[in-house]
Amino acid sequence: MNNDNKSRKITIAIDAMGGDNGPEIVVDGVARAFSRGLDAKILFVGDRDILGPLVEGHRGVKNTEIKHAPNVVTMTDKPMHVVRRGHDTSMWNAVDAVKDGAADAVVSCGNTGALMAVSLFQLKKIKGVDRPAVTALWPTQRGRTVVLDVGANVEADENQLVQFAIMGEAFYRTLMGVKKPTVGLLNVGAEDLKGHELIRTAARVLREADSEMAFKGFVEGNDISGGVVDVVVTDGFTGNVALKSAEGAARLVGGWVKETLTGTLNAKLGALLMAPGLRKLKDRIDPSSVNGGVFLGINGIVVKSHGGSDARGVASAVQMAASLARAPFQAEVAQTVAAVMARSDALARRRETESDVKIAAQ
Amino acid sequence: MNNDNKSRKITIAIDAMGGDNGPEIVVDGVARAFSRGLDAKILFVGDRDILGPLVEGHRGVKNTEIKHAPNVVTMTDKPMHVVRRGHDTSMWNAVDAVKDGAADAVVSCGNTGALMAVSLFQLKKIKGVDRPAVTALWPTQRGRTVVLDVGANVEADENQLVQFAIMGEAFYRTLMGVKKPTVGLLNVGAEDLKGHELIRTAARVLREADSEMAFKGFVEGNDISGGVVDVVVTDGFTGNVALKSAEGAARLVGGWVKETLTGTLNAKLGALLMAPGLRKLKDRIDPSSVNGGVFLGINGIVVKSHGGSDARGVASAVQMAASLARAPFQAEVAQTVAAVMARSDALARRRETESDVKIAAQ
Repeated sequence: MNNDNKSRKITIAIDAMGGDNGPEIVVDGVARAFSRGLDAKILFVGDRDILGPLVEGHRGVKNTEIKHAPNVVTMTDKPMHVVRRGHDTSMWNAVDAVKDGAADAVVSCGNTGALMAVSLFQLKKIKGVDRPAVTALWPTQRGRTVVLDVGANVEADENQLVQFAIMGEAFYRTLMGVKKPTVGLLNVGAEDLKGHELIRTAARVLREADSEMAFKGFVEGNDISGGVVDVVVTDGFTGNVALKSAEGAARLVGGWVKETLTGTLNAKLGALLMAPGLRKLKDRIDPSSVNGGVFLGINGIVVKSHGGSDARGVASAVQMAASLARAPFQAEVAQTVAAVMARSDALARRRETESDVKIAAQ
Repeated sequence: MNNDNKSRKITIAIDAMGGDNGPEIVVDGVARAFSRGLDAKILFVGDRDILGPLVEGHRGVKNTEIKHAPNVVTMTDKPMHVVRRGHDTSMWNAVDAVKDGAADAVVSCGNTGALMAVSLFQLKKIKGVDRPAVTALWPTQRGRTVVLDVGANVEADENQLVQFAIMGEAFYRTLMGVKKPTVGLLNVGAEDLKGHELIRTAARVLREADSEMAFKGFVEGNDISGGVVDVVVTDGFTGNVALKSAEGAARLVGGWVKETLTGTLNAKLGALLMAPGLRKLKDRIDPSSVNGGVFLGINGIVVKSHGGSDARGVASAVQMAASLARAPFQAEVAQTVAAVMARSDALARRRETESDVKIAAQ
């Protein structure tokens, strides 16, 4: 069955109009994904008059179709406005392609809030999930770590954090092929005493309810890049600040390195001698290699590519969408959520009984 | 007056026993500060039998005294335990030296929670301040930015955020000699709609109440290293995560750079050619150059040096303590807090009246 699944041709719908850099970059990105070995059909969604010439004129783009949508969601459009009145936009129609089965996954560089609202409205939440979360793939000293939520929810209560942990673990397992990913909760100290009350509660629930998860307790900000766990769980506010602070620091150090390499004539000569290594270093620092935030908790694969993505970034997001579409990702998330919810319910019932006993004993 | 202030010999008390790396590193750090031009008297606080030989045997350490304290606060001691029973510790006695006027500032590499509790208990809060905050000095593309709070308060309400902004601005002005530092509130998006309700309220209060502050509204995580504002305000949980995430990312990129420089024989040759630039790069990435978290909102200058500081880090913290002791820092913070509080009170009264009017009109 698994082989069948892998050999079936999958289709990725792409909201080709939504990014800051225009549809040219999106088409270039798809071409780049093909040159990296992408095995999928692409459904470009957007204005046919603009996309047609771009796609026809591009040698690297093959096996594609265009779905016409005359309008575009802007970065300032209010999410609910798009849900109500944006049915002629490329974003709406790209998500709609997943809903009606024409595509297995959708990629968009557009307005995150609108994409989340449109996806929720059209594809609905997975049963048992309160709020979807957005993932970030973070380069680390040991490989890649998934951080979630990085922006869908400004706040998250203990139950939502537990759900993020469950979804993040299933996501990592599918994407990276790791059987038992390790999971940590982002906090300000490794000791149990620190942090918000709700983070401590979430940790307790994860320890008690989900004995099958390799839950490692609390991790700190520096542990993310350190690769201490595979999945780092936090609320969307903290995750977004952590991600952007780290990106800013990486860019700062990258700038210093550039200064060092071009500071003197000798340094420039030295840079020539290490040119192959420097190319690799540049690729590693480049955030486009880890571009692609996945919306977890929705019945469908929705990948948000950074609004300012270049072609490399779009290619990474498309490849991620294809990997997830090829794996039994949706089923994995839904099954894990259902199984853990059943265990947590049992636990909650046990806790209620315990507290009734305590009250009765007073 | 200002000249008199500068020429007066100041004294820095140092909790010499509290760090992870022992008193040798602290004594080395002081010697390094002297070699960088430190003009201050040093009061080493700790076990005389250990410190005596260390100080006497060190050629670079001059103009110092020892205050005996036989006991040490450990990293796991509970803060309130130290306040109640730790009066024979080096930390208690170092802070006490500021209280009794023997020193103008105190530096400790010890347990942060205990240092905060001991400082609060002995030196008391500045009038008008609800909770003290801890600063971090953050290297940026334009110089240095101060971020606060980075760990004293897991949560902060809108009033506390406003107070952090006021104290942080006064701190930056004194330390960096910038007349009108710019201030931003850390958030997840530049638009007014995003973020927690309480951050939006704090922004409104800062805009309305403090017209003298160069308040620039919201900034995002990447804006910290970008140096977009001089002072970044947030709660201790978010600030700590941001700081550590950035440190982790800088370390990751630093490790990649090292790999690049030593990957091949050619790369090693190239590294030799750019050796002076690489030394500068290493200094820039080294977090010890910005070591020293200042406790703001306390009647006294308390500088927390990182527990794992090396001699360079200790030297930076000692120099920061000396700069603050030499400047009218305490008065600046206290005056600014008092002035803004008076304006906010007036504003709060006006708001109450407005809301009474609204209720009456309904």
